[in-house]
Amino acid sequence: MACDAGIDCVLPLAGVTAADAHKVAYEAVFSRSPEDLASLALFIGGSSLPVAEATLEAIETAFFGSMRVSVMLDCGGCNTTAAAVVAKIRAVGELTGRRAVILAGTGPVGMRTAALMAREGAEVALTSRDLRRARAACEAVCARTGQRVWPAEVSSASMIHDVLEGAEVVVSAGAPGVSLLAEAESTGSRTLHVLADVNAVPPLGIDGLDPTFAGERIGERRLFGALAIRRLKKQVHYACLSRLFERNDQVLDAEQIYLIARELESECAS
Amino acid sequence: MACDAGIDCVLPLAGVTAADAHKVAYEAVFSRSPEDLASLALFIGGSSLPVAEATLEAIETAFFGSMRVSVMLDCGGCNTTAAAVVAKIRAVGELTGRRAVILAGTGPVGMRTAALMAREGAEVALTSRDLRRARAACEAVCARTGQRVWPAEVSSASMIHDVLEGAEVVVSAGAPGVSLLAEAESTGSRTLHVLADVNAVPPLGIDGLDPTFAGERIGERRLFGALAIRRLKKQVHYACLSRLFERNDQVLDAEQIYLIARELESECAS
Amino acid sequence: MACDAGIDCVLPLAGVTAADAHKVAYEAVFSRSPEDLASLALFIGGSSLPVAEATLEAIETAFFGSMRVSVMLDCGGCNTTAAAVVAKIRAVGELTGRRAVILAGTGPVGMRTAALMAREGAEVALTSRDLRRARAACEAVCARTGQRVWPAEVSSASMIHDVLEGAEVVVSAGAPGVSLLAEAESTGSRTLHVLADVNAVPPLGIDGLDPTFAGERIGERRLFGALAIRRLKKQVHYACLSRLFERNDQVLDAEQIYLIARELESECAS
Repeated sequence: MACDAGIDCVLPLAGVTAADAHKVAYEAVFSRSPEDLASLALFIGGSSLPVAEATLEAIETAFFGSMRVSVMLDCGGCNTTAAAVVAKIRAVGELTGRRAVILAGTGPVGMRTAALMAREGAEVALTSRDLRRARAACEAVCARTGQRVWPAEVSSASMIHDVLEGAEVVVSAGAPGVSLLAEAESTGSRTLHVLADVNAVPPLGIDGLDPTFAGERIGERRLFGALAIRRLKKQVHYACLSRLFERNDQVLDAEQIYLIARELESECAS
Repeated sequence: MACDAGIDCVLPLAGVTAADAHKVAYEAVFSRSPEDLASLALFIGGSSLPVAEATLEAIETAFFGSMRVSVMLDCGGCNTTAAAVVAKIRAVGELTGRRAVILAGTGPVGMRTAALMAREGAEVALTSRDLRRARAACEAVCARTGQRVWPAEVSSASMIHDVLEGAEVVVSAGAPGVSLLAEAESTGSRTLHVLADVNAVPPLGIDGLDPTFAGERIGERRLFGALAIRRLKKQVHYACLSRLFERNDQVLDAEQIYLIARELESECAS
Repeated sequence: MACDAGIDCVLPLAGVTAADAHKVAYEAVFSRSPEDLASLALFIGGSSLPVAEATLEAIETAFFGSMRVSVMLDCGGCNTTAAAVVAKIRAVGELTGRRAVILAGTGPVGMRTAALMAREGAEVALTSRDLRRARAACEAVCARTGQRVWPAEVSSASMIHDVLEGAEVVVSAGAPGVSLLAEAESTGSRTLHVLADVNAVPPLGIDGLDPTFAGERIGERRLFGALAIRRLKKQVHYACLSRLFERNDQVLDAEQIYLIARELESECAS
């Protein structure tokens, strides 16, 4: 994607440990000239959020005062995706006090979505088939952001019914091609009025939610499909990459990337 | 070579397993926008043909309908080299019914050359110092293409004499700097009328075959040296790379690459 | 840095062994066209000088006559840094017969600095906290260049006093952020008249030596700080990178890089 975005040189470094990351950051800063600092940025990808977060910390320890380069964390596209989802949902209404459910939220995208929704004032439940994994994810969210998110097990149809009880917003954050919410289940709820699904690969996460829906109204509901979310996600991603090279001191993690997503979403709307 | 050919970004990924390959292909397709699919292609290199073929299969399983990117397999330059050799030989005459010998043919280049010649109707023998390796290579060719190729052991001067008995075409496909056919042996044959050698590093695979020969006639014979073959191979390689980015659904393996080689060879001739 | 310098494609290869290096060099030469040889060059980085030197040797064995590509060795920036330091010091006076001390000189930068100063005729001592490491470094310098360099242990204040006795030039070549010479110690010497420090990260290697000093005179002394050295180092690095692609037969190691540094330093001075 960095190549798509027109970055001149992309140097992939695989299997980077925290110690490697420190060294890479150190050499990015101290082997090069101060005037070149803004021409290089570090992008933390991979698929494990704990590893990505440890990498970001290790990178920070290599910097000294203004001797630093910009850094972006987006492992598995977690921040750009979560920022796009929450910005889209936020654009159709305040989240303060709203009850939200993040289905299959233990992955990077789910955890970041839960944290950003909680930060907007929502009461967030994060589900998993395995309660312990849900708890671990909620604790990790809290440890990083101070936001409380409630864990919930969803390993049967009755459990999903319970979890959706009173929920107003539901985001399906599961793996591609895994169905999480049957049409009957979502239709049955009287409170639900925003549904979003990040999975574009059939079967969809939320059965019947057209991936191209970009906030379409069906009855009382607003629907956000994976392709519409991905379109904003891509714009956010490109805007972030561009931001990285404007200065040498950007740190783009969930919160900063969310601000960029909100700006872009409001520009689109206007 | 992709850099030489002017590809904007080349991201080398080393030590890729089949599982990695699936993931890379998946992310190349599903993390990016549909409109960007043709801007990225996967190139399978490496030196092991079985690994390359397993990688191609793993990549194919990640694609879904039109959600795919173009792929080229050319491990160790096997397809572009074999395509160039066979296109050059084919350009000086039909291969149907001809007896051909691929010397030291158990490597990727040899196996692809044998398969393409067999597909053109030749009766192909593939040699090795070790009969079991020759058999394994022939079985692999047959498993992939359905073409029958005959294994032959060549571990002595008398054996090469036997193998060349009645052969009309011989291709030396061995490692660089390994002599496979002495001048006396080739000169002795009455039936041989096409000789080609892919090894440009002295000692040559076919003693006395000038690497710059591009189909030169010596008596009844047409001779193709490694540098002449490599010139066409490079054109084929560049044409394939260019083809990869024209659409997002190309799969360039032996057969497709051979068609491109034949087109280029006939353009040169005309 | 190669990206900063405008190189079109930079392909990082990690964890390269001598066997890998041979193969990479072989394929850089023999898979590509002779007319493309000057468009690719090999850069040996990493942090271990013995590994870098073994890599360079392995690469050389892959070349054949004029079939070669240009190569530069600069592991940990050792050659460009050492060349810049010695060129700057040499520019303010002959080194023949001068007594020089390389503090903490067992790393790549220290060893290359010691070798280049010895080659200019200086009597060079190379220090370490550990005498055995100092000895090993001096032996490695001698094995490669034939230049004798004297090992010295510096593990206490009195030892540094002894080592500086009669020294005219001191170069601090230690790790970033490690103080090696207190202000009182350097001020106390009557013979010292050139001081240079390659460490720009506080605490500096030589206490009180302003990193921006580019040969400033303080009393009888000429002072070279890390930022000034790094400025020339960068010019040298860029000039070398550019040189690599002018022809296909450059081998840029300490001596060749030093010549380039001297040219650039004299251009700056004039």
